[in-house]
Amino acid sequence: MFKPYPNFTDIQKAQKEVYRFLKPTPLHFYPELSQLVNASIWIKHENHHAVGAFKVRGGVNLAAHLTLEERQTGLFTASTGNHGQSIAFAGQVTNTCVTIAVPNGANPTKVAAMRSLGAEVIFAGQDFDEAREWIAHQAIINGTRFIGPTEPELISGVGTYALEILKDLPDVEVIIVPVGAGSGACGVCLVAKTINPAIVVIAVQAEKAPAAYLFWKNGQSAAAKMETFAEGLATRVPFPNTQAIMRHPTKGINDFVLVSELEMKQAIILLLEHTHNLAEAAGAAALAAALKIKERLIGKKVVLVVSGGNLSIEGLRQILS
Amino acid sequence: MFKPYPNFTDIQKAQKEVYRFLKPTPLHFYPELSQLVNASIWIKHENHHAVGAFKVRGGVNLAAHLTLEERQTGLFTASTGNHGQSIAFAGQVTNTCVTIAVPNGANPTKVAAMRSLGAEVIFAGQDFDEAREWIAHQAIINGTRFIGPTEPELISGVGTYALEILKDLPDVEVIIVPVGAGSGACGVCLVAKTINPAIVVIAVQAEKAPAAYLFWKNGQSAAAKMETFAEGLATRVPFPNTQAIMRHPTKGINDFVLVSELEMKQAIILLLEHTHNLAEAAGAAALAAALKIKERLIGKKVVLVVSGGNLSIEGLRQILS
Repeated sequence: MFKPYPNFTDIQKAQKEVYRFLKPTPLHFYPELSQLVNASIWIKHENHHAVGAFKVRGGVNLAAHLTLEERQTGLFTASTGNHGQSIAFAGQVTNTCVTIAVPNGANPTKVAAMRSLGAEVIFAGQDFDEAREWIAHQAIINGTRFIGPTEPELISGVGTYALEILKDLPDVEVIIVPVGAGSGACGVCLVAKTINPAIVVIAVQAEKAPAAYLFWKNGQSAAAKMETFAEGLATRVPFPNTQAIMRHPTKGINDFVLVSELEMKQAIILLLEHTHNLAEAAGAAALAAALKIKERLIGKKVVLVVSGGNLSIEGLRQILS
Repeated sequence: MFKPYPNFTDIQKAQKEVYRFLKPTPLHFYPELSQLVNASIWIKHENHHAVGAFKVRGGVNLAAHLTLEERQTGLFTASTGNHGQSIAFAGQVTNTCVTIAVPNGANPTKVAAMRSLGAEVIFAGQDFDEAREWIAHQAIINGTRFIGPTEPELISGVGTYALEILKDLPDVEVIIVPVGAGSGACGVCLVAKTINPAIVVIAVQAEKAPAAYLFWKNGQSAAAKMETFAEGLATRVPFPNTQAIMRHPTKGINDFVLVSELEMKQAIILLLEHTHNLAEAAGAAALAAALKIKERLIGKKVVLVVSGGNLSIEGLRQILS
């Protein structure tokens, strides 16, 4: 199903809703990472939201656009991680009911986090796709709104972080952004290419989950494995509306880089060491990409988008050992 | 040497200088920590500054008050960690020369961080006190300003984070703040007790480095061990001007809690798990204290000040294992 996509004005309008409940996140310069990459490295700290991820901006914007009736029947979505927490947070601050389907055996810590934010969590199906199909069907039966990962209001909301980047560093030359479903990359493209088309936007995905990369490159779906430990990048299918933006001849991304599991793990450790931020693999992917293509970044002003800290203590322990 | 201490108006004035170079840090509510403590737990994220610590506010404010001549001859200080990085950052953004003495064998990562921020780093002496005495003497010889940890301009600058707490959560009931030299606790006291004297301010120190605690309790210096791994709390001597504020009958702190090494390590893991923030021991001390005195916090609105992420990868690995 093709959904319409928002434009720059929609993102500007979203600011009003987003900043009712959220504050701008910092853009910090890191001297030591700059030395490592041989460029000027800034990090956009989308991990500094209370729920640790940029998606909360989209959730808040979407919730603000519901009718009173929609608000009462609420939002239905499926998630195992950041998306669910973000929609739950949006529901809490906008007084909107949120129901989230998670697969059987979902991580108890994440389930607890969603419930702590007031969401109703229902176990349904053996994996994420089964949970998503079940809740989408429930939404139809109940006449409520099912929230997919690339709703136009979500893209408009998350695009506000790109406005913040351009405000804080107007002469940014390169922005590197991780791609799951692609809402973040689309927000960055729509903002950066409108304000200054010379800004280079580079998307990142895991070598072990290249569905969006393959569609972007070839213009058609291909059988793609989905074996990465980077949950935030683990999409099995490309989404038509975000692909339409990412592949746009003038508004789209300039390049798409794949990173390995090892490269993401190394980037997690570098972020811990030099910025003292715990990122999950998706959060560290932009740094991994910058190191991979460093010969193309020499001397440039580069912003890395870091979002997502849903790394378990056990997962961190394994990476460190 | 007794230094005068600032008042509420000095902190209000410091905002102008602080916000020229820094942005307010977030105050986030954490549902899961709230369940653990059985109170409403907010965290004031002073670890979200680029250098990871609240002290940078003081450095920026102090640098702004120098004369042109002082700015050229610059600031002399001694540090092995957050203080040095904060003063180096302040020097960089205010175009002020900064010279930092560190003991021989100082952590190379921290030395590199200070140098990345443009500071001149000089190795002097076998431990921190020797480095400090040497650089203080150099400052006298050179006619430059030596920066101790409790200068009035530092306290005024760091006090701005307390103004942010009161703005974001006007009905806060308890603020728990770690104490090294005491500038942070003093900033909190001067603000909270001026705006609402009913706010309870609780200071925290390590059981293994109780110098400030013992002076606060007894009104006189006592031989105190200094064996904690919490560098940010590792002060050997109490400072007269911060003690004068902390012991003040109406403006002072309400209580002082000591936490064990194990309690701080457990709090580091809880912060990683529930907030995805890497804190050093001093940064986790407020959570450790809240858990220790949880029966006194039931149902209250509590702010924990988290500052400092200078935990090495090796240190983290040990705590996790």
